[in-house]
Amino acid sequence: MIVWKIFEKPRLKSPILVEGLPGIGNVGKVASEYFIEKLHAVKFAELYSDHYPYHVFVNEDDTVDLPRNEFYYHKAKRKGERDIIIITGDIQSMTPHGHYEIAKAMLDFSKDFGVKTIYTLGGFGVPALPKHPKVIGAVTFPELRAKYEKLGVKFESGERVGIIIGASGLLLGLGKLDDMEGLCLMGETLSRPMFTDAKAAKAVLIELSKLLKLKVDMKDLDDRSVEMDRAIAKAKEIEKSMMDKASGKDEFRYIG
Amino acid sequence: MIVWKIFEKPRLKSPILVEGLPGIGNVGKVASEYFIEKLHAVKFAELYSDHYPYHVFVNEDDTVDLPRNEFYYHKAKRKGERDIIIITGDIQSMTPHGHYEIAKAMLDFSKDFGVKTIYTLGGFGVPALPKHPKVIGAVTFPELRAKYEKLGVKFESGERVGIIIGASGLLLGLGKLDDMEGLCLMGETLSRPMFTDAKAAKAVLIELSKLLKLKVDMKDLDDRSVEMDRAIAKAKEIEKSMMDKASGKDEFRYIG
Amino acid sequence: MIVWKIFEKPRLKSPILVEGLPGIGNVGKVASEYFIEKLHAVKFAELYSDHYPYHVFVNEDDTVDLPRNEFYYHKAKRKGERDIIIITGDIQSMTPHGHYEIAKAMLDFSKDFGVKTIYTLGGFGVPALPKHPKVIGAVTFPELRAKYEKLGVKFESGERVGIIIGASGLLLGLGKLDDMEGLCLMGETLSRPMFTDAKAAKAVLIELSKLLKLKVDMKDLDDRSVEMDRAIAKAKEIEKSMMDKASGKDEFRYIG
Amino acid sequence: MIVWKIFEKPRLKSPILVEGLPGIGNVGKVASEYFIEKLHAVKFAELYSDHYPYHVFVNEDDTVDLPRNEFYYHKAKRKGERDIIIITGDIQSMTPHGHYEIAKAMLDFSKDFGVKTIYTLGGFGVPALPKHPKVIGAVTFPELRAKYEKLGVKFESGERVGIIIGASGLLLGLGKLDDMEGLCLMGETLSRPMFTDAKAAKAVLIELSKLLKLKVDMKDLDDRSVEMDRAIAKAKEIEKSMMDKASGKDEFRYIG
Repeated sequence: MIVWKIFEKPRLKSPILVEGLPGIGNVGKVASEYFIEKLHAVKFAELYSDHYPYHVFVNEDDTVDLPRNEFYYHKAKRKGERDIIIITGDIQSMTPHGHYEIAKAMLDFSKDFGVKTIYTLGGFGVPALPKHPKVIGAVTFPELRAKYEKLGVKFESGERVGIIIGASGLLLGLGKLDDMEGLCLMGETLSRPMFTDAKAAKAVLIELSKLLKLKVDMKDLDDRSVEMDRAIAKAKEIEKSMMDKASGKDEFRYIG
Repeated sequence: MIVWKIFEKPRLKSPILVEGLPGIGNVGKVASEYFIEKLHAVKFAELYSDHYPYHVFVNEDDTVDLPRNEFYYHKAKRKGERDIIIITGDIQSMTPHGHYEIAKAMLDFSKDFGVKTIYTLGGFGVPALPKHPKVIGAVTFPELRAKYEKLGVKFESGERVGIIIGASGLLLGLGKLDDMEGLCLMGETLSRPMFTDAKAAKAVLIELSKLLKLKVDMKDLDDRSVEMDRAIAKAKEIEKSMMDKASGKDEFRYIG
Repeated sequence: MIVWKIFEKPRLKSPILVEGLPGIGNVGKVASEYFIEKLHAVKFAELYSDHYPYHVFVNEDDTVDLPRNEFYYHKAKRKGERDIIIITGDIQSMTPHGHYEIAKAMLDFSKDFGVKTIYTLGGFGVPALPKHPKVIGAVTFPELRAKYEKLGVKFESGERVGIIIGASGLLLGLGKLDDMEGLCLMGETLSRPMFTDAKAAKAVLIELSKLLKLKVDMKDLDDRSVEMDRAIAKAKEIEKSMMDKASGKDEFRYIG
Repeated sequence: MIVWKIFEKPRLKSPILVEGLPGIGNVGKVASEYFIEKLHAVKFAELYSDHYPYHVFVNEDDTVDLPRNEFYYHKAKRKGERDIIIITGDIQSMTPHGHYEIAKAMLDFSKDFGVKTIYTLGGFGVPALPKHPKVIGAVTFPELRAKYEKLGVKFESGERVGIIIGASGLLLGLGKLDDMEGLCLMGETLSRPMFTDAKAAKAVLIELSKLLKLKVDMKDLDDRSVEMDRAIAKAKEIEKSMMDKASGKDEFRYIG
């Protein structure tokens, strides 16, 4: 089940799709949210699915919302810039095949707005937190490697990365079946649960901004690390407790 | 798979949907069942699903029944009252996506009877059993907070509640996508398995009765706590044993 | 996915559906297989499903077969007898919702042959193996209790049995939604994995034969207990090992 | 979800379908890959599915690919040879019912090219690594046992093999429902995770080549064992870590 809530149908000129969702170090999510904020990007659609957790979040103003992913757009303002669609959100699919269904729905939706190029943002785990996290790329076709190398992207993922899990991987993999241009930018981060890495997100955003020829003020991003850690730790605790119940680890089976 | 068994199609005037299903402290289930009994509400439909456990219950008279949720209606008797549809039952979905499918089916069914407002009843866990359990609300839209606050509902859920799991959450979350008015009333209860909290149910029912301008005699509710504890403990023991088999914890795989 | 393999479409006169599949003590399976053998019942259909395990069995003659359930028929030979359809097989669904889908498919198929009455056979666990296992019944409607009590069936299931799991339960539960007459005969057996209880099966068969006014020679059934124990122990060991792999308990993920 | 990527529609004369996918000892996968290489078989189709893991593989050239199974064809070059379709790939379904859906899709696809005969390749576990691994067969119909015995295939699977799991089993089992001729060739191998057995693969390939009247140079196969062990060990480590996350064993729930 995929349910779209569409607020606006913006006219965009072959926009680039940028995805940043929760994942290792929350690199993608932090990067996409900061990007949206600094660009004053406009939310135009939400995606709901029964592959997301079966609960509502209670917001600070005592209202509730289903888990969802959100679509924002940004229109090019200067020459050389490109129109952009940004995907962000609180969650990814809880089921393996849900990842496929949702990534496919995102691609179909994006193609209706003229998307032919996809950039996905994520982290990749290293044993110790690096002082200056490297960002490395992976692409959908061999010829793109040369193109993006010229634009400054480093390519060591073939040696260092085995697989890319979730939306960041599947959007590229499914996009490749439709001959779409795709790039994944991965920042080195610590492979530890409950850790949000604003530094890695910053490193990824710097690369992304260069590719998109956008100037993004990075100074608020460092401060953000501390407050996000707290919020995400709380959310994960709740989530984990729910998953334990769903998987029968907990004796308490009835929920509501 | 959703199967409806419909006994009657009552004509109702923009009824309010009230949901109380098994969950933490069984607050919602106890409240809805007691409410149905005291209002002499009439059962008019049953919902069956393959997301419910794959067994039948054996009743005291040696008959069997599939797990199900039940729909009752109550017609307004005095000025100021409203027609009501009440959902109760023994179980909730065993699968995550089943929660979505069933909540959606319940909403679609209810909308056919003119439902535009949903009240869901539940508990929220506190570390120690409170002498006088508080009841707090959560709503589908910000403007409803003010409306229900005037009617006496307390709102601290934004601070105290992270998520609302199952039907109580999803009916509001999915209803919100259809612009429905929704309120969840949650009573403080002990977050402990196998615990049925008639006191919290009473606190929730008092709030609900005020909102619905109904007088409900509460005196039988206190006695009920003890007997329900026993029955539910037995049911959960059986359920757990079945789940262990289904999840392969038990060596005994064949069932029948 | 349900796939039917139909060998013959026998003309039957409002046949009674008798189900005996693997379960506690394998009471149902042993009873139905012995019944088929002694009646010389004829196989006329097989049911295959992707809810069954994803393997083939290798038979003694080096051929392979998918897991399946089998349908046999027996035509009444004397006055007072009834036509009968018997369901037996090696497995039940591996997934909870598969139990529903398969039971529904079995009912729909049986109704095409005029089935209006269902007898399901099973065991119910007791702490110690009884010398003379009792057989108790459960029915789809209260009035059937009196009818079958007159025919000699004991009814203590309301007190002693909480739930009936799998096909034996769901065929009655789903049949009840279609107003079908249903009876479950359960023999007392030991609630222990890897145990096949020919004595309980015999007790159930004696009751069944009385109801169906059939004389079934029981003398081979006692001998059978020993050999079945061995075969089933082997099958379960294999099954368990496959389930461990499927559920990720085992490090060895690749299969084939 | 099954997605086909078809590069070519070769005209084949009642080709034999040969399947070799990952499994115990990776016997089937090693055999099919070596076979493809030595025959210079041509890839003409790829099968993608949401039953495969929800990630992309990062290749050595920094490009990404979804998990997939691949179809190659080989045209008969000499009299007595047969056209062949070979299935190979990195993975099998992650879900039980996905095994059925994928095997059925493979059969339907193959039948469009005239396939009526299926050979599946795999291993079967023995407690100690044999010096000269035996190869034994299983067939879809009893009369095939005699046919293949004359061609040199040994048949002890009825005694030694309980079940054949995954594609090697289901292609035969589902093919049998369509009256297809099927043979599984299983090589003795060590039942140990992370073990790739080129020796067993060689034994299976020798049998297969005899049946197909093809001469396949085996000398590179021995060298291959060592390098494959390393690559597969790495892949499994990654896979396992992903599965742990998916199954909630790991506290780190968010992926991306």
